[in-house]
Amino acid sequence: MSPKRLEAFSDAVIAIIITIMVLELRPPEGSGFDGLRPLVQKALAYLLSFVLIAIYWNNHHHLFKLVERIDGAVMWSNMALLFSLSLVPFATAWFGENPGSFAPVVIYIAVQLACATSYYVMTRAVLHIHSSESQIATALGRDTKGKLSLGMYLVALPLSFISPWIGVAIIIAAAVIWLIPDNRVVRALNAEQD
Amino acid sequence: MSPKRLEAFSDAVIAIIITIMVLELRPPEGSGFDGLRPLVQKALAYLLSFVLIAIYWNNHHHLFKLVERIDGAVMWSNMALLFSLSLVPFATAWFGENPGSFAPVVIYIAVQLACATSYYVMTRAVLHIHSSESQIATALGRDTKGKLSLGMYLVALPLSFISPWIGVAIIIAAAVIWLIPDNRVVRALNAEQD
Amino acid sequence: MSPKRLEAFSDAVIAIIITIMVLELRPPEGSGFDGLRPLVQKALAYLLSFVLIAIYWNNHHHLFKLVERIDGAVMWSNMALLFSLSLVPFATAWFGENPGSFAPVVIYIAVQLACATSYYVMTRAVLHIHSSESQIATALGRDTKGKLSLGMYLVALPLSFISPWIGVAIIIAAAVIWLIPDNRVVRALNAEQD
Amino acid sequence: MSPKRLEAFSDAVIAIIITIMVLELRPPEGSGFDGLRPLVQKALAYLLSFVLIAIYWNNHHHLFKLVERIDGAVMWSNMALLFSLSLVPFATAWFGENPGSFAPVVIYIAVQLACATSYYVMTRAVLHIHSSESQIATALGRDTKGKLSLGMYLVALPLSFISPWIGVAIIIAAAVIWLIPDNRVVRALNAEQD
Repeated sequence: MSPKRLEAFSDAVIAIIITIMVLELRPPEGSGFDGLRPLVQKALAYLLSFVLIAIYWNNHHHLFKLVERIDGAVMWSNMALLFSLSLVPFATAWFGENPGSFAPVVIYIAVQLACATSYYVMTRAVLHIHSSESQIATALGRDTKGKLSLGMYLVALPLSFISPWIGVAIIIAAAVIWLIPDNRVVRALNAEQD
Repeated sequence: MSPKRLEAFSDAVIAIIITIMVLELRPPEGSGFDGLRPLVQKALAYLLSFVLIAIYWNNHHHLFKLVERIDGAVMWSNMALLFSLSLVPFATAWFGENPGSFAPVVIYIAVQLACATSYYVMTRAVLHIHSSESQIATALGRDTKGKLSLGMYLVALPLSFISPWIGVAIIIAAAVIWLIPDNRVVRALNAEQD
Repeated sequence: MSPKRLEAFSDAVIAIIITIMVLELRPPEGSGFDGLRPLVQKALAYLLSFVLIAIYWNNHHHLFKLVERIDGAVMWSNMALLFSLSLVPFATAWFGENPGSFAPVVIYIAVQLACATSYYVMTRAVLHIHSSESQIATALGRDTKGKLSLGMYLVALPLSFISPWIGVAIIIAAAVIWLIPDNRVVRALNAEQD
Repeated sequence: MSPKRLEAFSDAVIAIIITIMVLELRPPEGSGFDGLRPLVQKALAYLLSFVLIAIYWNNHHHLFKLVERIDGAVMWSNMALLFSLSLVPFATAWFGENPGSFAPVVIYIAVQLACATSYYVMTRAVLHIHSSESQIATALGRDTKGKLSLGMYLVALPLSFISPWIGVAIIIAAAVIWLIPDNRVVRALNAEQD
């Protein structure tokens, strides 16, 4: 199997998911600024989800630059990732309409947990068919960020019982961690280009 | 004609189809978990259709890796496949709202039958313009799975008269058959890489 | 300018247009077959538009296989084509709801006329920057089909005053003409491969 | 990092954005021409946004033809551009329903300003990692158009307080400026091909 078409297909699905979320932002009834007020929380939820999906695309992009081959396990864990990501617009819409409510926040975190889990499983499936001396094995290393964000989502679920906003804060913190450039992968890529 | 752009176009259409299905999952009115209950059956229908379309993408990907040329017959049978696949979101939405009802199940099976038929016709059109010693002819071989799933859909239609759930069970069984890796194609690809 | 990215962008837009049309097919309220009856005419309108857009994609694909360079005029006439094609889902939805009514048929034909005109202008812009001995000039030749379908759409508009069904019949006839393989282009491509 | 996949991802997102806008054009209730009247202003707003997004795609295409490398800053400023562009369908829908109203025009201009700002930041991020003798540095030069349209959007915002139509006129003028071919980039590209 070749990684190129899986990469292109994943790109297309991620591009669609990241864009259809904004269809939830319906123009208000009237023509005044006050009609926009209920949209502010929806727009912020959309922005958060946009950043989270962009991070997945970015990580996917870095990962597949170093992937030399794929198999059925990689293909299907990638499909599980795409399925989980495709639930983000639904979770974002419900969360954006009820930002401080318990159930929408729990579903939002659960969908993020599904995305992170399937991405993690996919990296394991990739490592399984690459030698431990391969570039991808070196670049992923101990995959601290991947495990950390998985753990954060797992912790965010029960803490949302105390206050949904704690769950939201942990999701945002997990996003911020990923926004800091992943030096290990970048370093491996630079080494390759030298 | 070159297969590359047809492959890219098919990828884009399949990516869109697999993603817009989830637009049917509308956030519930309230902010409680009980609002999610009617969505569970819709989400399961969406999951089933996601897996079925992912299988088509996967088979399409494997097939076109070995395709050396295409003609008008391949182009139009591929278009018929894309048209049939584009009806899956509609059939999924109706089936997801009425999972045990006769008419939605029959339509769902009929759309799957249309997909399987056009895919089968496309493989015949591909074989027609490749020699019997070509990689694609060897890889497809007797195409047991293709013929089997076609037959299962044909049997599922009348059996749905007894109970729609029999039809649903056969559709799921057909999906499971495809989830088992197609060793013949994989073997031919591996041979090629040696 | 390079034709490759314009081709990829056009593919993506056409793939989206051809797929979002089917979003008009909403599942009926009840769960019986009789709920499907009003959808039959919509589904037929969708099928017609699907075939018409697939023909544009196919022609676009053949044309760009031979295009050696593009300029601003090609880029913007291609954008005009994409804009015209993007109106097809709207025209199809209105036509599908009112298949025998005058205004929706006129709008449907007018949108097809806009597509055909911008496609024709694009072929002229392409020829303008290729020598008369180029493959593309030879392949397009007198472009009988392009001019014929343009003329048919022009005739269909006034004849729809007599009966909208005459207009619909001419549109279908124009589609059938394009479904017959364009031997000139195919011949030029084959010559190239020899 | 390689620019190719970022380019492909951007293409897909821009293709989706430019196409989903037209979903706002809903077929009218009746089957007469008079039902189309309220759609005319929506269609004109759609046409304006289509042209503006097509200009971004065109500029993006020209820019990335000369880009030799990207980094995190380019990636995220490009994501900010895609996010801003994804708000265009929302702004277009509100503007198209209330073309002469103050608030929708201000939001429409603000979204255009966000697009222009993130595009400008992206060009700066690109220049930052290319030498001042690179093709891209030569081609962008003083980037008169980029700065001019940014300035026009900034001026359009306060002038919309006098009349929203002044703001609309400035947006249209900014589009017209970009429709005139950018000779500097074209010249650099031609020089490259010689």
